[in-house]
Amino acid sequence: MMAFSTLRAGRVLSGRGGQLLEGFSRARGTHVRSSAAIEKLLPEEYDGPLLQTEVPGPKTQQLMKELHAINKNAGNVQLFIDYERSHGNYVVDMDGNRLLDTFAQISSIPIGYNHPAIVDVIKDPSNLVHLVNRPALGVFPGADFASKLSEILMSVAPKGLNGVQTMMCGTCSNENAIKQALIWYRTQKRGGPPTQEELGSCNTGQEPGCPPYTVLSFDGAFHGRTLGCLTLTHSKPMFRVDIPTMNNWPVAPFPRLKYPLEEYTTENKAEEERCLKAVAEIMEKGQAGGRDVAAMIVEPIQSEGGDHHASPYFFQQLQQICKQFGTVFIVDEVQTGCCTTGHFWASDSWNLPEPPDFLVFSKKMQTGGYYFQDKFSVAQPGRIFNTWMGDPPRLLILGAILDVIQKQNLLDVARESGEVLMEGLRSLQEKYPALISKARGMGTFAAFDGKDPETTAAIVRKIKNKGILMGMCGTQSVRYRPALVFQPHHVDMALDALDSTLADMSE
Amino acid sequence: MMAFSTLRAGRVLSGRGGQLLEGFSRARGTHVRSSAAIEKLLPEEYDGPLLQTEVPGPKTQQLMKELHAINKNAGNVQLFIDYERSHGNYVVDMDGNRLLDTFAQISSIPIGYNHPAIVDVIKDPSNLVHLVNRPALGVFPGADFASKLSEILMSVAPKGLNGVQTMMCGTCSNENAIKQALIWYRTQKRGGPPTQEELGSCNTGQEPGCPPYTVLSFDGAFHGRTLGCLTLTHSKPMFRVDIPTMNNWPVAPFPRLKYPLEEYTTENKAEEERCLKAVAEIMEKGQAGGRDVAAMIVEPIQSEGGDHHASPYFFQQLQQICKQFGTVFIVDEVQTGCCTTGHFWASDSWNLPEPPDFLVFSKKMQTGGYYFQDKFSVAQPGRIFNTWMGDPPRLLILGAILDVIQKQNLLDVARESGEVLMEGLRSLQEKYPALISKARGMGTFAAFDGKDPETTAAIVRKIKNKGILMGMCGTQSVRYRPALVFQPHHVDMALDALDSTLADMSE
Repeated sequence: MMAFSTLRAGRVLSGRGGQLLEGFSRARGTHVRSSAAIEKLLPEEYDGPLLQTEVPGPKTQQLMKELHAINKNAGNVQLFIDYERSHGNYVVDMDGNRLLDTFAQISSIPIGYNHPAIVDVIKDPSNLVHLVNRPALGVFPGADFASKLSEILMSVAPKGLNGVQTMMCGTCSNENAIKQALIWYRTQKRGGPPTQEELGSCNTGQEPGCPPYTVLSFDGAFHGRTLGCLTLTHSKPMFRVDIPTMNNWPVAPFPRLKYPLEEYTTENKAEEERCLKAVAEIMEKGQAGGRDVAAMIVEPIQSEGGDHHASPYFFQQLQQICKQFGTVFIVDEVQTGCCTTGHFWASDSWNLPEPPDFLVFSKKMQTGGYYFQDKFSVAQPGRIFNTWMGDPPRLLILGAILDVIQKQNLLDVARESGEVLMEGLRSLQEKYPALISKARGMGTFAAFDGKDPETTAAIVRKIKNKGILMGMCGTQSVRYRPALVFQPHHVDMALDALDSTLADMSE
Repeated sequence: MMAFSTLRAGRVLSGRGGQLLEGFSRARGTHVRSSAAIEKLLPEEYDGPLLQTEVPGPKTQQLMKELHAINKNAGNVQLFIDYERSHGNYVVDMDGNRLLDTFAQISSIPIGYNHPAIVDVIKDPSNLVHLVNRPALGVFPGADFASKLSEILMSVAPKGLNGVQTMMCGTCSNENAIKQALIWYRTQKRGGPPTQEELGSCNTGQEPGCPPYTVLSFDGAFHGRTLGCLTLTHSKPMFRVDIPTMNNWPVAPFPRLKYPLEEYTTENKAEEERCLKAVAEIMEKGQAGGRDVAAMIVEPIQSEGGDHHASPYFFQQLQQICKQFGTVFIVDEVQTGCCTTGHFWASDSWNLPEPPDFLVFSKKMQTGGYYFQDKFSVAQPGRIFNTWMGDPPRLLILGAILDVIQKQNLLDVARESGEVLMEGLRSLQEKYPALISKARGMGTFAAFDGKDPETTAAIVRKIKNKGILMGMCGTQSVRYRPALVFQPHHVDMALDALDSTLADMSE
């Protein structure tokens, strides 16, 4: 591989001029854009990957040992990053290897590393106070908290959702959205605040204080990894009441579609109907048995579970079923939110007749939180609460990010790059049918499957040594989760390296 | 009230010279320290509270409305703070009222507002990179992550705990410590990694994948307000396996001691024995019924639940019972940690023969996380994991805080101020026996009870208008949770205002 050896020799691949890029662009049959024609969103960004050692290199391996000696749980660490030298779409590791990052810290870097707009937020003297003092936002917010929520978070609120609650991360955002939904469901059924009997019985998770209600989730779903501190909290019954114990909560099938979607419309429709039928049956069974499904939580694209897509029709129908049973409809956009799918929220593409009840965000949004409809406000203070309830500097940083997204129209960039990416992945799966399949995507939120888990892991491992950092999901999928400044010329580089990797593996 | 009117007129009460201070110092029978004799830890700090309006004032009330229009869950908000004008132990609200803060953002401000040492961390150009780029610490940590864990967090690790895991907040730290304990317990019982049968059955929370084990907590405990996203996560069985559903987890009684402790040694010993007996019975019953108590979690002082203390003997015995049953012993020091009790960790005062298995921290430590013994490391990567797993800037800020604590010997300050505070509270409860009782404390981590919930709320509300910000806990307790720079002269001010408030209420 000519291109690979050039790369390994430590020479920079210039933006468009590198062998890899020309190679793939030819394969795609597109015209070869000249170096000059590329309008970079980050003028100072590197022109391509640059490798100095095998990845992971010796310094990363040494640091892994040092970290494991203290942290003990560090088995997931892939690379130690030199964040100072990382810029835009490129991370530089401690061995000096510069990689094009298509994983972006598990989808949580929105506009690239060391973006000048974020640097400006941190350096702005008027923001110093927010960086130095940590408020308990639910009790003593700073002067500008309401206005920042309004200017920043409400500027991108899904239509019809007028309430917003900040949190620290995606998991606690899901936790609290679900909690708020359960409180609402129970309050509405009861017709008022908890009774003394309920406050008394909730301490040990008994009925009626902890109702037998359930929350429905889907097979393959990922909503976080917590287990329920509330079960262990007995300081005030008002914290615990109305929250069921999580025993035998129902799990519905999520569609397993065939890709490309447009070629399998009949099969896919049947698969979605099968899942919808199962959901409705669970709802009916729950209600009949006194175990109401109080809320349903669903991802627009099952992400960690393996990038499983479903159609707008499917989600429209889920909402309809929820309405029918009085179930709260929660959309978890922690990974799909903030433009990456070519819509600000992936659920914007569903054309729902009414907004969802809750929409949860985190990752690219930098602050965790969720939007909700007015009617879900909790009457008693302190039930949706913790010490910090978010982090003001992250909100300021988000403000700068949203400005950049708007000014540079990064929504369109995600769409354009997504198209180039999908076209390329489809041509590669035709070229290497024994190795990869099921190319699928929405914007740059894309994936393909490897032949088996080992092949998939090998692709991700080998492509690192061609200067591309990728992530896996599910059992045998490779997921693209680049920043929103991932332009078509970056896609070209990523695809060329994949082509080259698959070619090596076919030999 | 002469002192109060002086205050309300908007005049500054100088450090020691104010009427309030002299008044209380005389009541305590201590010598009146002259203004000159006070060595301030923060030379630029204000000399006393200063009120401009009733608290909450009109601007705070207006901002509350604005926030509630967006957030909808903002019923706990007490004041909007002008963090720029807040310094040391004083918060200034949006109406220009300056209050001596004895609550410190629910115990999470360690060295006061706008401390120059924290300002320096934020302004240090070499830290910029950590503030701008948000790493997924479990996959792509920065170059200095291992060394910062070692230099900063391990420098204050409890003796015998060699592993540390950072997290985002106290709740997710408890969640993950408990999860790690459960994984260890199950792995040890099984003698190896999860079986295929277990990985298959855990998806819907069934046995054997989700064992019937329990975690014991105590009546009155507070460990967080989450409910268990893991129950809704089905992306990979390895995330879910070994974690029980939280059905009927046992709740043991926590001692309800009489105060002052030294006057009721016999009664208190009997009360602790009653609780220990109940714990042992729960353990036995669990084991006999196949529902092993895999872990126990306990606070050194039940905080949110109402500042309930127990003796070192009680905790030594808990550890013994855990050892006897093979149960993991988790100490939740989220609120009691970081010097506030006059020990770095409250559990340092227990003189345990062996270290606890896990110790959880957050709040004053700025970063969430937990320490643990080596043997609890999790073999399979990704089981203790989330996207961010902590926040590097918070670790850097903690480094500066620990330096200040050491240089200014703030552990001794907490002890000294705690003594002054306890002496004062005891004299006040003798003076106003119809209004307050049960003064109790360890360092400045102190509390008293109001006659009933209404009286308690009235004390906290009224004392705000004497320039003192306080917090409540339990059903009718007032808790002191000041910063570590809360010196004896601040205690004097807080006690004088309490004296004056109780005098008003006695009229």
